[in-house]
Amino acid sequence: MRVTVWNEFRHEKSNPIVAGIYPAGIHGAIASGLVENGILGVTTATLDEPEQGLSTERLAETDVLLWWGHRHHDEVSDALAAAVCERVNAGMGLIVLHSGHFSKVFKRLMGTPCTLRWRAQGELERLWVVDPAHPVAAGLPPFFELEREEMYGEPFEVPPPDELVFLSWFKGGEAFRSGCGYRRGRGRIFYFRPGHETFPTYNDATIRKVIANAVRWAAPAVMEAEPFQNRRIMPPLEPI
Amino acid sequence: MRVTVWNEFRHEKSNPIVAGIYPAGIHGAIASGLVENGILGVTTATLDEPEQGLSTERLAETDVLLWWGHRHHDEVSDALAAAVCERVNAGMGLIVLHSGHFSKVFKRLMGTPCTLRWRAQGELERLWVVDPAHPVAAGLPPFFELEREEMYGEPFEVPPPDELVFLSWFKGGEAFRSGCGYRRGRGRIFYFRPGHETFPTYNDATIRKVIANAVRWAAPAVMEAEPFQNRRIMPPLEPI
Amino acid sequence: MRVTVWNEFRHEKSNPIVAGIYPAGIHGAIASGLVENGILGVTTATLDEPEQGLSTERLAETDVLLWWGHRHHDEVSDALAAAVCERVNAGMGLIVLHSGHFSKVFKRLMGTPCTLRWRAQGELERLWVVDPAHPVAAGLPPFFELEREEMYGEPFEVPPPDELVFLSWFKGGEAFRSGCGYRRGRGRIFYFRPGHETFPTYNDATIRKVIANAVRWAAPAVMEAEPFQNRRIMPPLEPI
Amino acid sequence: MRVTVWNEFRHEKSNPIVAGIYPAGIHGAIASGLVENGILGVTTATLDEPEQGLSTERLAETDVLLWWGHRHHDEVSDALAAAVCERVNAGMGLIVLHSGHFSKVFKRLMGTPCTLRWRAQGELERLWVVDPAHPVAAGLPPFFELEREEMYGEPFEVPPPDELVFLSWFKGGEAFRSGCGYRRGRGRIFYFRPGHETFPTYNDATIRKVIANAVRWAAPAVMEAEPFQNRRIMPPLEPI
Repeated sequence: MRVTVWNEFRHEKSNPIVAGIYPAGIHGAIASGLVENGILGVTTATLDEPEQGLSTERLAETDVLLWWGHRHHDEVSDALAAAVCERVNAGMGLIVLHSGHFSKVFKRLMGTPCTLRWRAQGELERLWVVDPAHPVAAGLPPFFELEREEMYGEPFEVPPPDELVFLSWFKGGEAFRSGCGYRRGRGRIFYFRPGHETFPTYNDATIRKVIANAVRWAAPAVMEAEPFQNRRIMPPLEPI
Repeated sequence: MRVTVWNEFRHEKSNPIVAGIYPAGIHGAIASGLVENGILGVTTATLDEPEQGLSTERLAETDVLLWWGHRHHDEVSDALAAAVCERVNAGMGLIVLHSGHFSKVFKRLMGTPCTLRWRAQGELERLWVVDPAHPVAAGLPPFFELEREEMYGEPFEVPPPDELVFLSWFKGGEAFRSGCGYRRGRGRIFYFRPGHETFPTYNDATIRKVIANAVRWAAPAVMEAEPFQNRRIMPPLEPI
Repeated sequence: MRVTVWNEFRHEKSNPIVAGIYPAGIHGAIASGLVENGILGVTTATLDEPEQGLSTERLAETDVLLWWGHRHHDEVSDALAAAVCERVNAGMGLIVLHSGHFSKVFKRLMGTPCTLRWRAQGELERLWVVDPAHPVAAGLPPFFELEREEMYGEPFEVPPPDELVFLSWFKGGEAFRSGCGYRRGRGRIFYFRPGHETFPTYNDATIRKVIANAVRWAAPAVMEAEPFQNRRIMPPLEPI
Repeated sequence: MRVTVWNEFRHEKSNPIVAGIYPAGIHGAIASGLVENGILGVTTATLDEPEQGLSTERLAETDVLLWWGHRHHDEVSDALAAAVCERVNAGMGLIVLHSGHFSKVFKRLMGTPCTLRWRAQGELERLWVVDPAHPVAAGLPPFFELEREEMYGEPFEVPPPDELVFLSWFKGGEAFRSGCGYRRGRGRIFYFRPGHETFPTYNDATIRKVIANAVRWAAPAVMEAEPFQNRRIMPPLEPI
């Protein structure tokens, strides 16, 4: 399995608090967490690298892509967003993290606005496992907590998830569908809510385990080699 | 539409607090709320009535049934539970309220344990609408509150809902899937969480609107006249 | 309810066979079928009209849109496709017909390739009702037939439908998910398979009933007046 | 993984045609197919064995159970049916084969009538893969065929499947949802349609691969050691 962690990687450069929490970047922390959980073949890519980190070749060599973006979704080229979506439909797994809910990639794959309510005051988030037998919940306790996180509230404008794994409880009064699985084309998509840049979420052992579980769950079952197309079937299998 | 509100109607007889909140019984309060919201044809039935309130004729004349039970689920006869389930599959709507989650009827229809976590300390419950366009959410604000309610927590051991309408946030720290729609046979089932007997939940105007919405949503589209059976189809439609 | 039937309206101008079957255009036949089934407020729009038939005002006055397109999907402007999708998410119903499966509008809303297998030889199609209580199946027999239709075969590259209503059987040997309901944002989408231009499908009484049912099912429950946006919620509802 | 293939095993004793096709019993053929596909730990059990083949101990040692029954569903004791359902909810995988659709076990788990249309004339069945990336479809071609099978037709009175993998096309004119996945409690259930006793379906290499795939997909992720129960949670996690 070849895993690519993509990160906008701008907050870390401009905000010393974020740089302090994530000295190797958010992508670096996520990648470390994956390695720590036994995922091999992990590399990273960032927005300011050539071809925004994801050349055609790079994407073609990625089995599962993780996506963290926030302020600069619009800078991601339409062509790249389209290429990522195409590869997801072909079979690549995609793990969309936190503010990636509003990325071009996620919005295109969902077909909905993907908006939500938010408040970045650093409040307690408690995540409840609603489907303990789901592979993304493997090895987790009934709930787990993040002492300080951004709040995301409903309605989360996404299609009804094919598989709902977590609900979040926020101290400030909201509940949220925090772990949403989707099957699209040959690929699988998992949206996992936590991860505001000013809190050390991706350094948390349980969060790292969830993300590793999600990567394993989203590993491609098959990968389409040819682009999808409408295919004419002649002659018929049976006399008409 | 002929609507029957079924209630165990025991707490009201033995507990003066419950009797004080619901002088006409929980069923009476629910029925009043339906009438108040323009639902016609509402009657009530209770466990201690002849045939446990639901004779064959009565059931056959019910289009939507509401079910409130708690301590005496086991007293409901297996035959009645089976008859209710059969009628739901034939097309009758069923609204399962609060502790009805553990009724014979609901457990049979779900095929799962229907267990959950709970705490009856009278804490704030805030219900968030996750699907504002769902008919059961018609006319509701983004969230609504019950000052004092029992807590129900995940995992709620039910099949993945076909339609999820509400999430609850509890002051004590839990989140819960509080409004769950199911399509079964020709019928529709809506599970709505609030309604502990020692709190005046069914006197609340918003709760009454939700229940009336649910009744309208669950109104039968078609009602099967004949029992379901495997049917032999001969001759074939096409030469084999 | 204000219903707009949009049609590419090119086959009718260039192919005498199509013109013969649909002298008032495919849109005209569909609109007649709706009127015949008691739907009021039906108008039509076509690709070659100003603003491709759907000005901002026109779209803002449409509650349910029906979409038939085939050879000229690419001519529909990206701006119009985006506006239609935005309006669906805001609450407008959308009925996508036959080769509309490959329209910009449908592909954007689904987020998947929407490809399929096909064969336009004019073979028998038999549609089976898998969910007889679904509103789109109201008043239908267990199956209905079209003597000559194009074949569409699986895999149909769409998200798992939220509601599956019909399966098609084709004489040439294929089966297909022919009636697929989706809930997206505040809106509802129904994909209905039949309708190749060289066969008189939209003149068929049962097909007309299905489309009228779909229009009623997709009628908006609520319509968002404001564009969707992420909303900051401060102060919190509870002390953090 | 410990796999138990349960078979009614009566047709083989009374009908020489069935005995001729399945000299080791239907269970024997299914077990051979699993072994052939690399599944280890396969044993069999039949209705006429002590405790109907499934003692408490035996069931407690089964990770995935396959179920074939037909004429004698009613002889399976209610206690055994209940025990099997309980174990499925605890985490055991269950593969329900063909006429097992009408077994006590399946009907209890679904909560619906599970009826269908049928015709046992020995006609061509062609199964189409609608979700090629689903684990149960691993390694399969776009479609596969059984020269002679019983027909099953819609409406199949089951809950909407959580995961739909196959559609069947029958020469006689019907289509059917032939591969249906369900998540219930901690367990997974797969219904796979083919397998009438008078045809050599379970000797077919592709059918054997599908069943092996289903067993792997249904392997328990977690197994609950304790019975499900409502649990009181005190004190609250947060002050109320």
